[in-house]
Amino acid sequence: MSLQLDADGRLRHFLTTEGLPRALLTHILDTAESFSGVIGKSVKKVPLLRGRTVINLFFESSTRTRTTFELAAKRLSADVLNVNVATTTIKGESLVDMLHNLEAMQADMFVVRHAESGAAEYIARHVQPGVAVLNAGDGWHAHPTQAMLDVFTIRRHKGAFEPLTVSIVGDIRHSRVARSQIHALNALGTGEVRVVAPRTLLPRDVEGLGVRVHHDLDSGLRDADVVIGLRLQRERMQGALLPSESEYYRRYGLSEARLAVAHPEAIVMHPGPINRGVEIDSDLADGPRSVILEQVTNGIAVRMAVMSLVLGVAPESTPEAT
Amino acid sequence: MSLQLDADGRLRHFLTTEGLPRALLTHILDTAESFSGVIGKSVKKVPLLRGRTVINLFFESSTRTRTTFELAAKRLSADVLNVNVATTTIKGESLVDMLHNLEAMQADMFVVRHAESGAAEYIARHVQPGVAVLNAGDGWHAHPTQAMLDVFTIRRHKGAFEPLTVSIVGDIRHSRVARSQIHALNALGTGEVRVVAPRTLLPRDVEGLGVRVHHDLDSGLRDADVVIGLRLQRERMQGALLPSESEYYRRYGLSEARLAVAHPEAIVMHPGPINRGVEIDSDLADGPRSVILEQVTNGIAVRMAVMSLVLGVAPESTPEAT
Amino acid sequence: MSLQLDADGRLRHFLTTEGLPRALLTHILDTAESFSGVIGKSVKKVPLLRGRTVINLFFESSTRTRTTFELAAKRLSADVLNVNVATTTIKGESLVDMLHNLEAMQADMFVVRHAESGAAEYIARHVQPGVAVLNAGDGWHAHPTQAMLDVFTIRRHKGAFEPLTVSIVGDIRHSRVARSQIHALNALGTGEVRVVAPRTLLPRDVEGLGVRVHHDLDSGLRDADVVIGLRLQRERMQGALLPSESEYYRRYGLSEARLAVAHPEAIVMHPGPINRGVEIDSDLADGPRSVILEQVTNGIAVRMAVMSLVLGVAPESTPEAT
Repeated sequence: MSLQLDADGRLRHFLTTEGLPRALLTHILDTAESFSGVIGKSVKKVPLLRGRTVINLFFESSTRTRTTFELAAKRLSADVLNVNVATTTIKGESLVDMLHNLEAMQADMFVVRHAESGAAEYIARHVQPGVAVLNAGDGWHAHPTQAMLDVFTIRRHKGAFEPLTVSIVGDIRHSRVARSQIHALNALGTGEVRVVAPRTLLPRDVEGLGVRVHHDLDSGLRDADVVIGLRLQRERMQGALLPSESEYYRRYGLSEARLAVAHPEAIVMHPGPINRGVEIDSDLADGPRSVILEQVTNGIAVRMAVMSLVLGVAPESTPEAT
Repeated sequence: MSLQLDADGRLRHFLTTEGLPRALLTHILDTAESFSGVIGKSVKKVPLLRGRTVINLFFESSTRTRTTFELAAKRLSADVLNVNVATTTIKGESLVDMLHNLEAMQADMFVVRHAESGAAEYIARHVQPGVAVLNAGDGWHAHPTQAMLDVFTIRRHKGAFEPLTVSIVGDIRHSRVARSQIHALNALGTGEVRVVAPRTLLPRDVEGLGVRVHHDLDSGLRDADVVIGLRLQRERMQGALLPSESEYYRRYGLSEARLAVAHPEAIVMHPGPINRGVEIDSDLADGPRSVILEQVTNGIAVRMAVMSLVLGVAPESTPEAT
Repeated sequence: MSLQLDADGRLRHFLTTEGLPRALLTHILDTAESFSGVIGKSVKKVPLLRGRTVINLFFESSTRTRTTFELAAKRLSADVLNVNVATTTIKGESLVDMLHNLEAMQADMFVVRHAESGAAEYIARHVQPGVAVLNAGDGWHAHPTQAMLDVFTIRRHKGAFEPLTVSIVGDIRHSRVARSQIHALNALGTGEVRVVAPRTLLPRDVEGLGVRVHHDLDSGLRDADVVIGLRLQRERMQGALLPSESEYYRRYGLSEARLAVAHPEAIVMHPGPINRGVEIDSDLADGPRSVILEQVTNGIAVRMAVMSLVLGVAPESTPEAT
């Protein structure tokens, strides 16, 4: 954890939301707020990362995620290089040699995506001082920028976190997004964080995450201020962890009707891409409660914030200043 | 058609040359003329699209076409993202969701290439106001920037369109380029537009396109001021639509000798890449009549013009101002 | 050879180190020295190639090499296009047509990588005046920017070349790097250049290269100031040119112990990526003698130097000025 922070408590890498102090998370959100004005303007660029080199180091292909980091970096005026790596194992001398080579080309930041949990942390342990590592998703472990754009979106709509009830619905077990959301929401003081899922889709250590567990959707959504649906990975079906898609939808699918028990002004979120009619109904995804596309827009500002903070060039770069 | 124009008659998308008024086509050509000076200079950049994001959305791979749009966008100082999509069907919710996601990342323009006719128009119907769509080739339907670079090249060499006879030779039936050329040439008042092809390579509605049909190359080229050869898609051979390559060359292949019946100062064009010795002979392609490489150079200026016009940032952005 | 120089002796293309005058090589090194300051700064960009278009024309995929050229070009503020070509044969009209098309798009420079010897030179013979060609590796023939970054690294550590003994160890026969190094080292007046390899890994014309041949590692390394290990292409094993990997390591593998006979301050170099435990031991690769990662960093400055020199925009662009 302290791997992420320097001696003065400043963000050095961004690997997980777990263990980060509330002041730092708030500082990321405030910095993102300052960039979200930039995004609205017709000229969407600021020169904070001019002359810096960001390398998207993707061991697992994801056009969608790569695109958001690439856009964020370009709007900060960085040079961006996409390096797709076809190796499956993260550990080993050849990976470290590759890293050292890329660092020797004066890379300033690696954005790492990998199917193995712990990959970004492993890389952060091996880079030189001054080189930052951002986790763009590692196995089932963490996807911290996604979680930060989620809490950013919640704060924009709801203000303070203390009075809120947030329900996360779906495959918690295999979701790095859910884990990162839970850590961030708790650190920010959210009143109640719930997870709603069948037993087969919950992690074993779920009790230790600081959440209330619901197996029934109606009880799980009751009076919720924020409802977050997770993407259902269809390949889990074969693992016998799930009933059929239609059975899943009947029990856990989000729709305008099922949201009737939630707070009247509840918002609905989803990390995307959505499976319409499986984990969420179109009437909800495209309706007035949905902030799903806002999440995408906010993702650019949040990634700009994290990128400028880890390189120490954010508009105001000490948490104290916030 | 009106999908392309806003209430004031300004270009909003560029999907087809069909139905566009002459004043607008002329305005595109004039704007391209202003950029062709930029291209000649050693510093070939202008800041008109600085901070704007152009997404090349290619459902069909084409390095050549992608490259010309990417260069045009970069010379306007835009940020360019290449997104290759492997889906085969254009319609459906998942495509629209993908579009809305890319828009939420604050894309300003989509350059769309697709094997299905109507794809760019479908996308233009689904984007938010303020986002522009350029058609970079859709099925057999249209390739409007190619047509505009062709008429730009003709105007540079011949001036007014009224006195001209333009002969388009080859596989008209499967050519989106030919359709777009015919619409543009007619809208610009070209004296006579001819198509020269065997019956099997003509579309059924050829009479309605406003062209004179020739099946014989000598009569088709007689007194022509401009001769445009089309690329022969060799895969058509197997469809029994064509005789052998050598038979095709004997009947329709363009060469210096066959051009003897054309106007002495006739120019020769081709959208490229050429099949030497099939639809065109090297003596003609590399000879003084050929403006084939000029077409490529002009393509950058024409694409810069269309890109800056649809975003309302062209040097003088109202047709009246011309 | 004169293909590389214009009438005034200025660099026009960079295809091989063979036959280049010492003053020109020194001028490249001096120019690189001026850029290596730029690289160290947090803003690593200079505007020398602003508005210029560099096309990476790779007929053979190499992420590593492409990345270094792309970074060098971006740090000079050029626009960079990556074009991967899947054809296997370099010669022929379709290649020349493709080149002329890319030139017509106002490309200023081609960086060419090809599996066939002579490819970059072939392309340089066919481009228009004003368009520069850089060889990024052609077959077994040459890899001149790699050789220049090697001599740059040697000069930084050792100063003058005259008193030096440089030993190149490994598969000389199949190494374009070794050939380019030998030509550069000899032109720069290096005291003694040795190659150390079994007979099967030496080229037939080795005597004509101006080197001393050693088959024994101990004699080859004795009193050497610079030791360069080459990458062992494991696929050569099957060609019966090599014994087993362990046998190779026993006879030619570089290690701290084997370096005992070299000069006490000898440095160790390798073009990368290294095969640990095959041609080099980790104790040496990661030890104080190793300058392997410095070579990578220097590669950016050297490529910036060559790129700005061939386009005539280097800080001081005449050899005389040095």
